[in-house]
Amino acid sequence: MNLESFFSEKISSALKNDPPGAWMPNLPAGCIRLSSGHPDPEVVPATELKKAVATLIEEEKDLPLHYTGSPRIEGLKKLILKRLSERGMMINETELIITSGACQAIDLIARIFLDSDAVVAVESPTYMEALEVFQNYTKQIISVPVDERGLLTEQLEALLVERKRDGLAIPRFLYTIPTFQNPTGTTMTKERRKHLLQLAAEFDFLIVEDDAYGELSFSEPSVPLKAMDSSGRVLHVGSLSKVVAPGMRIGWVAGASEFIHALSWFKKDLDHPFAQSSMAAYLENLDFEKQLDSLRDIYRRKCTAMVRSLAEFLPDSVTWYVPDGGYFVWVKIPGVDTSELLTQALEQGVSFIPGKYFFLEPEDGAEYLRLSFSYANEEQIEKGIRRLGQLVSVN
Amino acid sequence: MNLESFFSEKISSALKNDPPGAWMPNLPAGCIRLSSGHPDPEVVPATELKKAVATLIEEEKDLPLHYTGSPRIEGLKKLILKRLSERGMMINETELIITSGACQAIDLIARIFLDSDAVVAVESPTYMEALEVFQNYTKQIISVPVDERGLLTEQLEALLVERKRDGLAIPRFLYTIPTFQNPTGTTMTKERRKHLLQLAAEFDFLIVEDDAYGELSFSEPSVPLKAMDSSGRVLHVGSLSKVVAPGMRIGWVAGASEFIHALSWFKKDLDHPFAQSSMAAYLENLDFEKQLDSLRDIYRRKCTAMVRSLAEFLPDSVTWYVPDGGYFVWVKIPGVDTSELLTQALEQGVSFIPGKYFFLEPEDGAEYLRLSFSYANEEQIEKGIRRLGQLVSVN
Repeated sequence: MNLESFFSEKISSALKNDPPGAWMPNLPAGCIRLSSGHPDPEVVPATELKKAVATLIEEEKDLPLHYTGSPRIEGLKKLILKRLSERGMMINETELIITSGACQAIDLIARIFLDSDAVVAVESPTYMEALEVFQNYTKQIISVPVDERGLLTEQLEALLVERKRDGLAIPRFLYTIPTFQNPTGTTMTKERRKHLLQLAAEFDFLIVEDDAYGELSFSEPSVPLKAMDSSGRVLHVGSLSKVVAPGMRIGWVAGASEFIHALSWFKKDLDHPFAQSSMAAYLENLDFEKQLDSLRDIYRRKCTAMVRSLAEFLPDSVTWYVPDGGYFVWVKIPGVDTSELLTQALEQGVSFIPGKYFFLEPEDGAEYLRLSFSYANEEQIEKGIRRLGQLVSVN
Repeated sequence: MNLESFFSEKISSALKNDPPGAWMPNLPAGCIRLSSGHPDPEVVPATELKKAVATLIEEEKDLPLHYTGSPRIEGLKKLILKRLSERGMMINETELIITSGACQAIDLIARIFLDSDAVVAVESPTYMEALEVFQNYTKQIISVPVDERGLLTEQLEALLVERKRDGLAIPRFLYTIPTFQNPTGTTMTKERRKHLLQLAAEFDFLIVEDDAYGELSFSEPSVPLKAMDSSGRVLHVGSLSKVVAPGMRIGWVAGASEFIHALSWFKKDLDHPFAQSSMAAYLENLDFEKQLDSLRDIYRRKCTAMVRSLAEFLPDSVTWYVPDGGYFVWVKIPGVDTSELLTQALEQGVSFIPGKYFFLEPEDGAEYLRLSFSYANEEQIEKGIRRLGQLVSVN
C-alpha cells in the first residue's frame, strides 16, 4: 500500500523540498557552537522561572493547568502591549495574538495569506526557517538583496515596476527582518524603511516585520516599521525567545484586528496556559528595561570579541558586516565553499551555518557563513574563530 | 483599504463559518459548570508539577529553556510509547509525534490529508472542535450516525457502496472517537471496530482514532483501533489533557512513519521544551496505572451521581446513554430547543453545551445536550441537574 498517496497534492509537492532543520549541523561533543541562535546559557533565567512557577502554583493552584482560566495570561498580553507602546507601537488587545514563538507566527501568517497562486517576497539572504515555511505554501518566492544598510528598496521598487508592467502578480507580502537581520546582522536605514512603506502603499502589498532581535541593540535602537505604519499594512512578529528563553515558546503577532482575528481562527494548538502563565509570573516582577540593558552589555562584549578575533585570525580577503545588535555576524570567504569548510570545522570542534541555507538559490550562498556570538562565551568565541582561521588559511 | 482582500480564497471562505469556540457559553459567576470538558480540579496534580519543575531546573538548569536539549523530552516519548505498548499498540519512535494536545494533532492531520477536493467522514454527532478544523480545509464533510454501540458501520458501508457506484470520491479519512465518544459517551463494539477496519481496507481510506478518553474506563477497557491495525491505516491521536492537565498541552499522533514524517514537516510551533520536560519530570516518578485507577474511581462516582440525578429530576420523556467511561452524558429532551434552554439554565446558574454544535446540520442536534461530569463535584452535579429538571418540567 502506498501510504503517501493519501497526502494532498500540495503537501506531496512540499515534501520534495529539503527537510525541516536540514541546516542544523550534528555537533560532536565539546564542539564550540557558533551555529546556534540560542541565548547565552548564563543569562537564561532558569532559577527565576523556577521561582515564578512556584509562586504561580501556590497562588493559583490548578488554574494555569486548565485550558483557560489564569488571569495571568491577560497580564502577559498587557505586558507585551506595554512594551510595544514604549517602542512606539500603539496596539490594542484585538490587535495582538500570542503564538508559540516567531516560527508559529510566521507559519500562521503564511497560512492566511498564501496559497499556490500567491507570490511572496523575501530578503536575500533571509532566515532559513521562514524560507522553509513559505516553500510549504507556494513556489512563487522572489528575493531582493540586503546590504549593510538593509533591504535594497530601490531594487524592490524596480522589481515591482517590472512585474506590474508585465502583468505579473504583486507579492501578497514582503517578509523582512529590518533590525539586526538574520543572517546578516545588518539594519535597514530609516530612509529605506520609509521607502518600503511607500512602496507597500503604492503597489498594495503587506509587510511582515520579524523583529525577534530588535530589542538587542548595542547603540541607538531603530524605530520598528510597525511604529511607522499608518495604514495597517505591517504585521509585527515578536518573540521572548531571544530576550528570555526560547523553550518557553512565547511569540506574537501585532497587526490589524482583521488579520489577528483570522490568525486566531486557524491557530489550533489552543493557548499554552502553563507556559504563558509561568512567563507572565516571571515578567511581572522583572525590571525588563534593566534586564535588556544587561543583555545588551553581554552580547555587545561577545560581538566585539568575535569581530576582534575575525580581524586577528582570518586572512585579509575575508569580510564581514559589523553588527550593531542581535546575535549574528555574516562572513564572506571568497573562493571557499562553506559547506565543505563546515565538515572540516566540525572535525576541529567548531560549528557555523553555511550560507547556502539562507538563499532561495543555494549556490548564491556558497562563499558565506553565519556565525552566532550568542551562545558561546568569549573564550570559546576566540578559540573557535582561531580554529576557523587556521582552516581558511590552509584552504 | 480592504484588508480582507489579502486573504487567500480558501481562508476567506472558512472565515464565513461560525467562529472558533462559538459553542462555549459565557458563564456567570458561581455557575455550575456541566459544560466544560475540564478535568476535576481536585485531581490536577498542581503541587506535583510544581515539584517536577523545581527538580527539572535544579538538575538541568537552563537546558529545558532552550530550543532543544533536555534529554527528558526523549524520556517523555519513551513513556508514551511504553504506555501505548501496554495497551497493545506496538509503536516505535519514528511512528510518534508529540503535539500541542489533541487539537493540534487533528489540525496537522487535516493539513496533510485534506484540501478542498478531499472528502472527510465524521461521526454524527462528533467533537465540535474537530468539525471546526475540518471545515477550515474542505466543505465536503459527510457524517455517519452513532448509537449506543458506537459508529453505525453498516450505514458507513452503505454510504461507501453508494459513493463508489455513483463515482463519487471516497473519504480520505474517517475521524472517529471510538471509546467514550465526545459527545455521546458511547463506545464502539469490537465487532464494529473489526468491520470498520475491513471497510478501510476494502474502500481504501484512513482512520483517525481520537482516543482522548480511552484510558478512563469504568469497567473493562476497550481495545483501541490502532491495536487492531495491521495495515498502517490508523492514526491514533492521544492526549494527557484528560488524565494529567490540559494546560500542559501534551498530545500525540501514533501512526505509520510516513505520516509522522509529514506531520513533523508541517508542525511549525517547534517543540515545547519547557512544557514537555516538565511533564516528563512529573511522569517519571509517577505510578501511572495507580493514578489512572484513582481517576477512574473519581469519574465513575461522579458519573453515577449524574445519571442518578438525571433519573430523579428529569421527566420520563428525557433519555440518555449511560457511559462506561470518559467525561460526558448525552441527553435527549424531546420537544425542547436546547439552545433556548441554555439561556434559562445560565440564569439558574448551570451550564451545558447545546447539541447543535456537535452536528454538521445544527438542526439535527436541537433536542440534545452534552453534560460533563468531569469538572463539577458530586454535590454541584446533583444541584445542577435538579435545576435543569425544574426548567425542563416547566417548559
